[in-house]
Amino acid sequence: MSATPYQLDPTLDLGIERLVDLTPEQLWAAWTTPALLVQWFCPAPWTVSAATLDLRPGGGFTTVMRSPEGQEHPHTGTFLEIVPNRRLVWTDALLPGYRPGPTPFITAVITFEPRDNNTQYTAVALHRDAAAREQHEQMGFTKGWNTALDQLIALMKRG
Amino acid sequence: MSATPYQLDPTLDLGIERLVDLTPEQLWAAWTTPALLVQWFCPAPWTVSAATLDLRPGGGFTTVMRSPEGQEHPHTGTFLEIVPNRRLVWTDALLPGYRPGPTPFITAVITFEPRDNNTQYTAVALHRDAAAREQHEQMGFTKGWNTALDQLIALMKRG
Repeated sequence: MSATPYQLDPTLDLGIERLVDLTPEQLWAAWTTPALLVQWFCPAPWTVSAATLDLRPGGGFTTVMRSPEGQEHPHTGTFLEIVPNRRLVWTDALLPGYRPGPTPFITAVITFEPRDNNTQYTAVALHRDAAAREQHEQMGFTKGWNTALDQLIALMKRG
Repeated sequence: MSATPYQLDPTLDLGIERLVDLTPEQLWAAWTTPALLVQWFCPAPWTVSAATLDLRPGGGFTTVMRSPEGQEHPHTGTFLEIVPNRRLVWTDALLPGYRPGPTPFITAVITFEPRDNNTQYTAVALHRDAAAREQHEQMGFTKGWNTALDQLIALMKRG
């Protein structure tokens, strides 16, 4: 099977790329284990009150994000590709079972490349158009995704 | 890998199911070979003037449908699952490379189940909501998809 033919377009997409002092296996575990995911996925003071992952193409990925005021915001996406310890792709353009979704916004492509005992970590959000990219940037994409990754690293370093 | 967790919802979806006097391999060839696909994919008097298929998850599926008056209507979708001779899934909710698309309408799940030397053929269109289903039905889904299948069968019987 050839690699995903996804291509980042800087006029449409946003991404972060960092060399992380964790193995791909640790990053994969943090991403795919609900009990771990809820501890890092939302930048504080937001939290994640629930997460479910059906790790197969077409399977659902639901998180419930909780604001500091206690409001809950569920978000449902669908997995497209699962390559253990290497790549995870999901989108909210589709509901679980591949049904077109009501509020398409992003496809996320998360890549874990081993570098000795570290990992080159790339998280990309693909958008439909420049307006969606701009909206996501204004929502704080870069700071938010970096802060969440910092939380992930701290969690996994605590063991 | 578990099967696609797609579920047909009769209030949202449309489908045809027929026992076809062709093998799954013949149906698969008709679906995935551009030179064959263009000969049956649009009910006459419409035709298909071009088709390109990048048969991998995230790969593009483009057809150019030509009206009797000569107007061309390109349509681009993206493959989600490719199980040779058994199942083909694509959607126009995503562009090639998984980017959310501008005009999400359907996900199509085509299934080929061997029955002796025949095939139980199922073609399902999943929609976002009842309005999209209704629109698709008014566009002539049931007659159109059955006529296209008749054209496919005639083509493959001619050999």
